[in-house]
Amino acid sequence: MIGVALELFSRRSPDDVSIDEIASAAGISRPLVYHYFPGKLSLYEAALKRAAEDLAGRFVEPREGPLGARLLRVMRRFFDFVDEHGPGFSALMRGGPAVGSTTANALVDSVRQAAYEQILAHLQVAEPPARLELVVRSWISLAESTALIWLDGRRIPRADLEVQLVHDFAALAAVGACHDAELAALLREVLKGEPGQGPFGDLATRLVVLAS
Amino acid sequence: MIGVALELFSRRSPDDVSIDEIASAAGISRPLVYHYFPGKLSLYEAALKRAAEDLAGRFVEPREGPLGARLLRVMRRFFDFVDEHGPGFSALMRGGPAVGSTTANALVDSVRQAAYEQILAHLQVAEPPARLELVVRSWISLAESTALIWLDGRRIPRADLEVQLVHDFAALAAVGACHDAELAALLREVLKGEPGQGPFGDLATRLVVLAS
Repeated sequence: MIGVALELFSRRSPDDVSIDEIASAAGISRPLVYHYFPGKLSLYEAALKRAAEDLAGRFVEPREGPLGARLLRVMRRFFDFVDEHGPGFSALMRGGPAVGSTTANALVDSVRQAAYEQILAHLQVAEPPARLELVVRSWISLAESTALIWLDGRRIPRADLEVQLVHDFAALAAVGACHDAELAALLREVLKGEPGQGPFGDLATRLVVLAS
Repeated sequence: MIGVALELFSRRSPDDVSIDEIASAAGISRPLVYHYFPGKLSLYEAALKRAAEDLAGRFVEPREGPLGARLLRVMRRFFDFVDEHGPGFSALMRGGPAVGSTTANALVDSVRQAAYEQILAHLQVAEPPARLELVVRSWISLAESTALIWLDGRRIPRADLEVQLVHDFAALAAVGACHDAELAALLREVLKGEPGQGPFGDLATRLVVLAS
């Protein structure tokens, strides 16, 4: 039933989905739904919990190969998720039915934290300096807003945005490194093994072309 | 009274501010507060409206001189605002007492829209291509999240972050331009008159140093 509810809450704005509809789609009676979930909010929160676990799971990526390529694969899975859950994702992130719900806010934060921890693990940084934390956390919010803007009309191909977000990460990290010697040293170390053909090398090539 | 309420809602988490306290600070009776505002939410919304107008007003900047320097002045005024309204700003943006309030959501969106329109006006772009809209709107969300992360411990001097956000804008615009010829042409035109000593020139110098 949670799966059916998640499907419905994802495909339309959750405000427009009724308990009756969920019961009917799940092929169970309305009283039975209420037996497990005292109201729509608790069912919504249960569906959101499943979605949050699903999304956090998509951030997991083997720690092998170039970092830029790893991040690009994660961005593809992130946009898969956003694509599958579009209206529900927009409604939640733009301040929808469950805002004010402590549970919903905590779930959104848990997904952000999972993304943050995955990135630090791939960078092999256990104790991030303040600047690195800022770069990673603010880039995560940039990825959210990019996805929301994409959903609003889909005027840019998502494949472009997946690459662009990898490039945005590199660009924001480079700006941070311009302002902080510790971050600069850390990034030099991290990027030592990156090949010229990956997304990071691709960005460098594009910037040189742009500047010329 | 709205001014007093805004002061109290700004300095502590709005959840912790009572109508009694506002009445007492404003030197008026509790029934008189209720005469004008049927509940705490309506008073909070009135205070938020004043704060939103204040912040949107700080985005207004004469259209003279280098763009980077203009944006830096706006960032200083933005951080002044964030500094003055710290706990209230955090509570609102992290999903605080007024979330679920359509009025509060609309006010936050109106401030974002004001920032967006100011930036387009300074770039002298009436009909932005989709990529430019994405760069500007996603940078606005980056500025919000940077301010929120700064408020959480203030581990990086705000003056550094004001400059960094100007550099972040340039970096995200450059990445966008790498992916979109129309945006690239537009930015070349806009940046023609920028001096080497402004924040944008400074970033270019720093990046060259970093890469070497």
